[in-house]
Amino acid sequence: MGLAEGGVPVASIIVHQEDIIGRGHNRRVQEGSTVFHGEIDALENAGRQPAVFYRDCELYTTLSPCPMCSGAILLYGIPKVIVGENQSFMGEEELLCPRGVEVDVVQDKECQEMMKQSIADKPELWNEDIGV
Amino acid sequence: MGLAEGGVPVASIIVHQEDIIGRGHNRRVQEGSTVFHGEIDALENAGRQPAVFYRDCELYTTLSPCPMCSGAILLYGIPKVIVGENQSFMGEEELLCPRGVEVDVVQDKECQEMMKQSIADKPELWNEDIGV
Repeated sequence: MGLAEGGVPVASIIVHQEDIIGRGHNRRVQEGSTVFHGEIDALENAGRQPAVFYRDCELYTTLSPCPMCSGAILLYGIPKVIVGENQSFMGEEELLCPRGVEVDVVQDKECQEMMKQSIADKPELWNEDIGV
Repeated sequence: MGLAEGGVPVASIIVHQEDIIGRGHNRRVQEGSTVFHGEIDALENAGRQPAVFYRDCELYTTLSPCPMCSGAILLYGIPKVIVGENQSFMGEEELLCPRGVEVDVVQDKECQEMMKQSIADKPELWNEDIGV
């Protein structure tokens, strides 16, 4: 969806006890946003919740989470993160793991190909998105 | 302003070469937002910028930045953060400093009193905001 909108193709969902309670994708191009990465968008769309709620959540993301998104995972204490791939971009997995977050990297070929192509097509956009 | 709106009284500005280019304050109550802490709001309001732009920025925040906001500072490579106080809440200063971010904590009495009173008045709101 993000790719079709001309955006950075990173998306995320938040699952609470098997229900998807938040969906999001990167909004840099679509809304001129510097903070709505896929994970942040999914968190925002999940709405206000008490802390205990997040302890029963899992966050799925197509790409290894950047420092901001990893920080959001730590802030809310989401205990498990399922990552589509970390070959296009290695996020802050080494920050998450020692703090008790289970990080499961799937290395999904579709996620890898989509990111690889997107970075090749629009390197300036990608660099802007990761502050490089 | 945030306090007058019934919200969490944390606010931030981003300064680029002596110009304020983004202002923000916590939007949890006002917009039902889980991601618009003061710093994230200020970053969003500063708009899309190339990476090099942030290298000449300083971020001011009334309160020590949480993991999400600290992650955003790292993502964009903002080199200096001026913190109003860290006695009400100790954020991720120990994550920022080793990565080369200069953190200057002012211990401003007005910031301290405002946060202390706000936490005493609305402890559930505050706990929700920091995922506790």
